[in-house]
Parts: sequence; structure tokens; C-alpha cells
Amino acid sequence: MFNAEIRIELKPGILDAEGKTVKNSLISLGFNSVKDVKSIKVFKISLDEDSKEKAREELEKMCEQLLANPVINNYSISIEGD
Amino acid sequence: MFNAEIRIELKPGILDAEGKTVKNSLISLGFNSVKDVKSIKVFKISLDEDSKEKAREELEKMCEQLLANPVINNYSISIEGD
Repeated sequence: MFNAEIRIELKPGILDAEGKTVKNSLISLGFNSVKDVKSIKVFKISLDEDSKEKAREELEKMCEQLLANPVINNYSISIEGD
Repeated sequence: MFNAEIRIELKPGILDAEGKTVKNSLISLGFNSVKDVKSIKVFKISLDEDSKEKAREELEKMCEQLLANPVINNYSISIEGD
């Protein structure tokens, strides 16, 4: 069993509407020191594979097929014990 | 200027609807080795404070006032160089 984290970010230049909204809300609340906010999605996945290599291969496929949109997202995969 | 990450997770026992949906979708796609999926939200925040202590204090307040719901969320803060 492997525990992994997939981290999905927006590519540079893609509008981060959520990050922008959170930034504006923080400033409205008086947090004037805030200069930038970026939103990132993380999925923590436990999977039952024989080797770390096979686990990474499967996680790559999951990103390509479901979790990340290649047009707007970059993703990174880290597997526990990396 | 400090770069920080706020990581917001659901407390244990709180239903993670997004994680559950992603898990089911992955299994539907044939990723049968997936045992569990948890969704986590991360905000990457740049803020202009004089000291790391003050930055952490402000970030704690941001979590309490806006970013995390204390009833259902746990959060953790990491500041670059920690």
C-alpha cells in the first residue's frame, strides 16, 4: 500500500479566480499585507500496488484521465517515502 | 516578504464528498487499486510582514476569520524557510 499526494495547480498565466477572490476578501477584512494568493488542489490517494514505480505510473494516468486538465493545470505527484 | 502555505483538511469523521466522488470515478475508470481519496485545499499566500512570527500570527487570523471552518476543518500553516 502506498500513500501519495497529487498536487494540481493552475499553469502560470491562467486566471486563478478563487485565489483572486480570497485575496480580495482578505484585504477587505484588513489583512493589507497580503500580496498574492494562489489556490491549489491536493488529492491524498492510498493505493494498493506492488511497487512504487507501478504506483507512480497509475497516478500519472489518473492525472491524465481525470484529475488534471492539461490545458490549464500543472500537476506533481509525491509518494510517501520519496 | 514571506511565502506561506495554508493547508485545509476536513476533520476526521467529516464526510469528504469530493474525495468520495473522485474515488468512485477513479474506480469506474478502472483504477481498482485505489483504496482511499481525500481532498485537501491549499492556499499559497505571499505577505509582506517584518518577521516570520508576525506573518504566522496574521495567517492564523486569516484561517480563523475566513479560510477554515473550525467546525469541520483542521488547518496547518507552513512558512518558507521553516
